[in-house]
Amino acid sequence: MFNDSSSRIVDDLRAWIAAAAPSAQLPSTRRLVTEYAASPVTVQKALRALVAEGLIESRPGVGSFVRAPRAVRPQDYGWQTAALGTPRHVLPSVSGAMRIAPPDAQALHSGYPEADLLPERLIRAALIRAARGSTATSRPPSAGIDDLRNWFATELAAQTPAGLTAPTANDVVIVPGSQSGLTSVFRALMAPGRPLLIESPTYWGAILAAHQSGVRLVPVSSDAEGPDPEGLDRSFRETGARAFYAQPNYANPTGVQWSPERAAAVVDVVRAHGAFLVEDDWAHDFGIDTDPRPVAAQDSEGHVVYIRSLTKSMSPAIRIGAVIARGPARERFLADRSAESLYVSGLLQHAALEVLTDPGWKTHLRRLRGQLRDRRDLLVASLREHAPHLGVAHVPAGGLHLWAQLPDNTDTDRLVRDCEARGVYVASGHEWFPTEPSGPHLRLNFTGPNSHGFPSAARTIATALTLQL
Amino acid sequence: MFNDSSSRIVDDLRAWIAAAAPSAQLPSTRRLVTEYAASPVTVQKALRALVAEGLIESRPGVGSFVRAPRAVRPQDYGWQTAALGTPRHVLPSVSGAMRIAPPDAQALHSGYPEADLLPERLIRAALIRAARGSTATSRPPSAGIDDLRNWFATELAAQTPAGLTAPTANDVVIVPGSQSGLTSVFRALMAPGRPLLIESPTYWGAILAAHQSGVRLVPVSSDAEGPDPEGLDRSFRETGARAFYAQPNYANPTGVQWSPERAAAVVDVVRAHGAFLVEDDWAHDFGIDTDPRPVAAQDSEGHVVYIRSLTKSMSPAIRIGAVIARGPARERFLADRSAESLYVSGLLQHAALEVLTDPGWKTHLRRLRGQLRDRRDLLVASLREHAPHLGVAHVPAGGLHLWAQLPDNTDTDRLVRDCEARGVYVASGHEWFPTEPSGPHLRLNFTGPNSHGFPSAARTIATALTLQL
Repeated sequence: MFNDSSSRIVDDLRAWIAAAAPSAQLPSTRRLVTEYAASPVTVQKALRALVAEGLIESRPGVGSFVRAPRAVRPQDYGWQTAALGTPRHVLPSVSGAMRIAPPDAQALHSGYPEADLLPERLIRAALIRAARGSTATSRPPSAGIDDLRNWFATELAAQTPAGLTAPTANDVVIVPGSQSGLTSVFRALMAPGRPLLIESPTYWGAILAAHQSGVRLVPVSSDAEGPDPEGLDRSFRETGARAFYAQPNYANPTGVQWSPERAAAVVDVVRAHGAFLVEDDWAHDFGIDTDPRPVAAQDSEGHVVYIRSLTKSMSPAIRIGAVIARGPARERFLADRSAESLYVSGLLQHAALEVLTDPGWKTHLRRLRGQLRDRRDLLVASLREHAPHLGVAHVPAGGLHLWAQLPDNTDTDRLVRDCEARGVYVASGHEWFPTEPSGPHLRLNFTGPNSHGFPSAARTIATALTLQL
Repeated sequence: MFNDSSSRIVDDLRAWIAAAAPSAQLPSTRRLVTEYAASPVTVQKALRALVAEGLIESRPGVGSFVRAPRAVRPQDYGWQTAALGTPRHVLPSVSGAMRIAPPDAQALHSGYPEADLLPERLIRAALIRAARGSTATSRPPSAGIDDLRNWFATELAAQTPAGLTAPTANDVVIVPGSQSGLTSVFRALMAPGRPLLIESPTYWGAILAAHQSGVRLVPVSSDAEGPDPEGLDRSFRETGARAFYAQPNYANPTGVQWSPERAAAVVDVVRAHGAFLVEDDWAHDFGIDTDPRPVAAQDSEGHVVYIRSLTKSMSPAIRIGAVIARGPARERFLADRSAESLYVSGLLQHAALEVLTDPGWKTHLRRLRGQLRDRRDLLVASLREHAPHLGVAHVPAGGLHLWAQLPDNTDTDRLVRDCEARGVYVASGHEWFPTEPSGPHLRLNFTGPNSHGFPSAARTIATALTLQL
């Protein structure tokens, strides 16, 4: 944020302030300009930074002064305990996968691709164009801007067979990222306390969203082709559930892609129970060996509520996704989104649309496919060579992660700590299970920084594992 | 989004497509370039627009084709009715105050200032700088970026008396607009079904957020100095409520600012009941005759949960606000925000910080104060002269609106429609009441476009009223 000469002034003044008396007056701007041979703009910038830090206060026309230190007394907020009561679920404030690792670490824990895998030039250009346009100061409709809604509808319509009625822009609601889509879908489709069928293991953010909305999670078993339709049918029958949450393409964490036959069988079961399939197509842009096959494209009766996000493939700063739903479900969803945040920044919507309709976007996705393949293959090979105790049963045909089984009785939390102490960040698989884990796992992201370090990271994991043998 | 020559090509091709056979091939890019004397970039842009509209599809290396029309059958989503069940509250999908009026209308209905009252140059420059920085492709911490949290803490600390412990950056959570702050505060502080005390009338968005979170609203009466402390005490006692939502500065819709004595009395009642005051300081930047006096500055025991937003004073595109809370309440709030959306776009956070720390921001706020005064006074004078049947009992010392009482038995919905038919958008006061309205009202925003038209708008309202006499 600051150029070098301004940060130097800030650093020096910080030291000066630390030694100064409370309320002491700082050297005048003119004097600082002379002393540092800096421009008045640079000096003002330095002073503003110190004001923002709360170290000084500026009295216009008089000068800048060291802020008097405040009384800081330890506070006891014990009275809040009774006022707050016991929550339905104690929500963790930060998930393990969201930890921010130091830049030199080998970060295999997070759910996001590093900036090198994003179309940076496109993103910056789109944001700058949006900043210059009218969307920088105006307010879009609650459901989102028409062109962007249309883009999402067209994407799904392109995969809809000719005999089915394809979704239109009217069925689309723009959301500020898929997590917001998930929480609103769960709130909109189900009352608190109602059962929600869910794959196990599955995305921790979906488990978190379900806990927040107060629904009751019912895990369903899956194999390498997708969820077991008979088991799913039984769970619907036993619980009276009306919704099933799943990731049919490159599921997080297992990487499984449903076979077309399995997808058809699952939709049949969902339809038979008059229920919703909440399809989280989080990895739509991350096919490697196959292309994604949205289940929603096979449904025109409103059984599939479809969530798609651009956060991971475009940028975490352009936090844009879409929910496609039909009929009353779409109405109820939109009402929840309106209550939750009224509308989504039009600037970000326009920037997303600019990127999506630029020919460079398709080029980027093609190049990304090769990059994902190289990284996935390198991490798989590194683990097989250097950490043979990790079981990577399934090499995913898309997505960003591997799901690795650990030897029975591994203390996963200790393993995570021991790896972290050696500069390798990994995520314990526990957070991906809605109930007790079926066994110890790690989820390993192959799109973080320093991919050349995968072999060394695999050795570090192996070393940390041997500490437990 | 398009320059003129590209939109002309789009318009012409749209007409051509309407008349063409399904799957017909469009003229080649080369031919269009010649025909329109346009650049290939312009022609490509036009074709991309038609692809985005779903009218054509482009086969790389072959050409562009009219999309075959799809089967569009009327769908019956009746099965969803049973699956969705009855909601706790039927949430309206769009509030009357959020209607988007045509640009030439006299829009007195909305809650937002027009773009002319925003610091446009500052906003664009800040967004462009943020787009060029690292925040365009990175992910910030869940609670927000440190410098921005610090800015919000410092603002409130500056109004905190010396004897009290002032809030710090740690107490601040950045939110994507105050509506998101409200819904999470209500969810975090109260279980569904619990009572929430609330002023009446009060901000419709707060009523909506409370309905969404499933809490039970208990209205509390107010006068020109703020809520009645005795009535508030009685309501806490009778209902066992542990929270009170209010807007102590320039309340929406009434414009009331609590007197310092009343604020102290209210905090005493809240403290005596071991409860929270949820202070929505929405109009902090909109003082006209007085300065805002945040009640949170008088509390260091964590009783006041403070919400401040920049959406209205900076830009609806930079949708940034902050919640300041202490102790376990802050933890629970942050956990709800993380579950709801993981984090807030770092780009928007950095852009907001750039604007706030620019000297132009203070200059803008000073100029704005005068603009608000002129507009408020013009609307008050126009109503008094041309629509004397409207009772504007209180000329607010700040904020964006007037609250006007209508003659008894006015059919407000009809009045709103009759005004709209004459190009004047007004908001029925009904939405600001958590229960039955105390009488018919209009809320009139004096910061919309075309303020020179206030006298004529007042005459239009008077004319529409006479239709009901």
